[in-house]
Amino acid sequence: MATLRIRNARILNPPDFSSGIVGDVVVDDGTIVHVGPDQARAADHVVECDGAFCLPGLVQTHVHLCQTLMRGLADDLQLLDWLQHRIWPLEAAHTRSSMRASARLGIAELLLGGTTTLLSMETLRHTDAVFEAVEEMGIRAVLGKTHMDHPDCPDGLREDSNASLQEAERLCKTWHGRAGDRIRYAYSPRFALSCTRQLLKRVGELARRDHTLLHTHASENREECTAVERETGRRNIHYLDAAGCLGERTVVAHCIHLEPGEVKRLAETCTRVVHCPTCNLKLGSGIADVPGLMEAGVRVSLGADGAPCNNALDMFEEMKLAAILHKVRSGPDTLPAASILEMATLGGARALHLDGRIGTLAPGNRGDLIVVAPSGPRAHPRTTPAPASLLVYAGRSHDVRHVVVDGRVVVEDHTLKTADLDTILTEADTEAVALRTRAGICVRP
Amino acid sequence: MATLRIRNARILNPPDFSSGIVGDVVVDDGTIVHVGPDQARAADHVVECDGAFCLPGLVQTHVHLCQTLMRGLADDLQLLDWLQHRIWPLEAAHTRSSMRASARLGIAELLLGGTTTLLSMETLRHTDAVFEAVEEMGIRAVLGKTHMDHPDCPDGLREDSNASLQEAERLCKTWHGRAGDRIRYAYSPRFALSCTRQLLKRVGELARRDHTLLHTHASENREECTAVERETGRRNIHYLDAAGCLGERTVVAHCIHLEPGEVKRLAETCTRVVHCPTCNLKLGSGIADVPGLMEAGVRVSLGADGAPCNNALDMFEEMKLAAILHKVRSGPDTLPAASILEMATLGGARALHLDGRIGTLAPGNRGDLIVVAPSGPRAHPRTTPAPASLLVYAGRSHDVRHVVVDGRVVVEDHTLKTADLDTILTEADTEAVALRTRAGICVRP
Repeated sequence: MATLRIRNARILNPPDFSSGIVGDVVVDDGTIVHVGPDQARAADHVVECDGAFCLPGLVQTHVHLCQTLMRGLADDLQLLDWLQHRIWPLEAAHTRSSMRASARLGIAELLLGGTTTLLSMETLRHTDAVFEAVEEMGIRAVLGKTHMDHPDCPDGLREDSNASLQEAERLCKTWHGRAGDRIRYAYSPRFALSCTRQLLKRVGELARRDHTLLHTHASENREECTAVERETGRRNIHYLDAAGCLGERTVVAHCIHLEPGEVKRLAETCTRVVHCPTCNLKLGSGIADVPGLMEAGVRVSLGADGAPCNNALDMFEEMKLAAILHKVRSGPDTLPAASILEMATLGGARALHLDGRIGTLAPGNRGDLIVVAPSGPRAHPRTTPAPASLLVYAGRSHDVRHVVVDGRVVVEDHTLKTADLDTILTEADTEAVALRTRAGICVRP
Repeated sequence: MATLRIRNARILNPPDFSSGIVGDVVVDDGTIVHVGPDQARAADHVVECDGAFCLPGLVQTHVHLCQTLMRGLADDLQLLDWLQHRIWPLEAAHTRSSMRASARLGIAELLLGGTTTLLSMETLRHTDAVFEAVEEMGIRAVLGKTHMDHPDCPDGLREDSNASLQEAERLCKTWHGRAGDRIRYAYSPRFALSCTRQLLKRVGELARRDHTLLHTHASENREECTAVERETGRRNIHYLDAAGCLGERTVVAHCIHLEPGEVKRLAETCTRVVHCPTCNLKLGSGIADVPGLMEAGVRVSLGADGAPCNNALDMFEEMKLAAILHKVRSGPDTLPAASILEMATLGGARALHLDGRIGTLAPGNRGDLIVVAPSGPRAHPRTTPAPASLLVYAGRSHDVRHVVVDGRVVVEDHTLKTADLDTILTEADTEAVALRTRAGICVRP
């Protein structure tokens, strides 16, 4: 791979994103080799920034690429209706072709909006199609098929336990470490009640054996917590703990309804938590106590979750909402802008054990970065705000101008370079109609 | 004025915004004369929509144009620090020139984002500069100077009661009904404790005499409510009631911390309430019980409040947050997308007593409309969602393509037509530095 020079950018890094350095980032064969004042080096590709902000790429640690085609199909519904009458039938109706369209639509949205790395949970089948889209389109991704082997799982989404585990092992063997380690596998049991206890234990063992992440949901919803306690005799987090599913390589989405002992256990085990503020509000789930979790020593990162519960995959929206949502409970000086920007970059990298590779702009790290040029009236007065304020409170995904992943320019001047966007949008429209028809879902157009 | 034809749009109206009609809106001399299938009429100006959504212009019923220059100057602060160390010194430091720059920056942001009508509370002085900017730039506006005559008001922002009222009467006489009734005056006492009781009574009388709105804040903050009760012996809303300040022409921002008797009294008096979700979270104020207010019969509309507590003036952000925020308390089927879109259009018009003039696209109404073309991956699959879902949950101000106010095209193809945007942005940058310097506020750049 050749050298890339990101020229004339205001370089911002965690923790305070306030550097005044205007200069270049030079990437050689995917690795950052220079960050700082212009050294007028030759490069095979020069990306001009005109003084715009250059910062580490955004990291979303909980999404579902398989659900992007379901955007707008499941609004304003009670959670059980949402799952039973929309999400599950639609996931069950996926074909390899619709999975590919769904993943490509989601990846296009994520890259154009500055997300360079994702952790995604897919459905039961056709996960290869998602990996292929990731490989082609150049996003950094950790993902896996989900597991649903519990007898209570709905028809069409209930797996044989052994077959489910074998498929996950095959996927891990095929994809973990691919594309120069840009792609990794994550064992991904859906949630406590979708899996038999035996499968949860096996998944935990496989994740340890294969040195992969374990990615799951927990304590999103009060009824879910009650059901777990009724069925297992334990609180959700303690049940996952007993099944060997907690630890520093486990990433748990939501964690809204926790008892103090559960928070303590998350901290003790170094288990990572993902906050999905838009989704948690839209589904009426609740508001996770993010400041309390952080105070207890739990590492928290951010994600948009799936398109049907959001309905965007926009890290700028998640950053703003995460920054303002907790001020009601904990005070307006809670989670200031720079801390949110750190959570969205280095914090995400840490959750995925990718710090030291991505999350800061420093020589030796991989070349994952975004160039953001806030524009229009809301970016003014420019003479006043700190960059973190401008990015978190007034920034928009639309302001993302260039995106680089692993040293490859994947978005340049707001244009996706690694796939044809019009084709992706057309295929998404066509596949969504077919998917909805197969799932027997009628929605007034 | 000439005829205007909005051609080839998908026309959406409250309450459900689901019409399949693709056609034209024709505006003659500022009045809508046709809404429906193309009749191939001649028109002086044809605006092409390529099938995009055409809906009534968005109405924000609580903003502060005088604060737009303070964007990013007051983040992550406790409310008292926010007011005493930032907002009040900055308001006191305004000159006519900085007020003009602040108003023009705000109006540009509002128009480009699809807000065609606003209710704004200005500071004590230089309100003519705001009216002039409104007149030039073509937005529909109801606004007024604020009143702060209480002995406890800070230096530089404490007025003589008679002089304060005389200035308001002069402004009302000068501006109310100007520009073909596109501009109206609103008497605007800041809040219960900023005014003497005598002034509140006089303001109520003047508003009734002049048939204007009365615009104020109440019950935004717990400490404010406690202080009002301590000082007046009554709950906030009951105190305003006793001072003659409630009624169907009164618009009260926030109303977060209310007792049941206050809600009842708001409903009985037909007083309007404005919900400002982003600002209420960012300042840590609380979450207004919007579903409960509406259930009690109170009419609620939406606003972004001022730039320093948001930090945008973006109705698409307010719509999405209002749609999702109340689902936690009241269930995920609360405030579905179409009801939020109605709140943002006809609901705002009703709050301002402008229904029958604006808020729906119908012959006889004034030509206030927006054309919105959702674009990019988040607008897909297009084959699925209802328009209201697409606009509220996945829409962005960036999607606003054309904006028409009173039959005048003020934004065409994302370009502001009634003022030079570059000049506005440059002046805002310059004036913000000078304003900050005059106010003695040092902010790390």
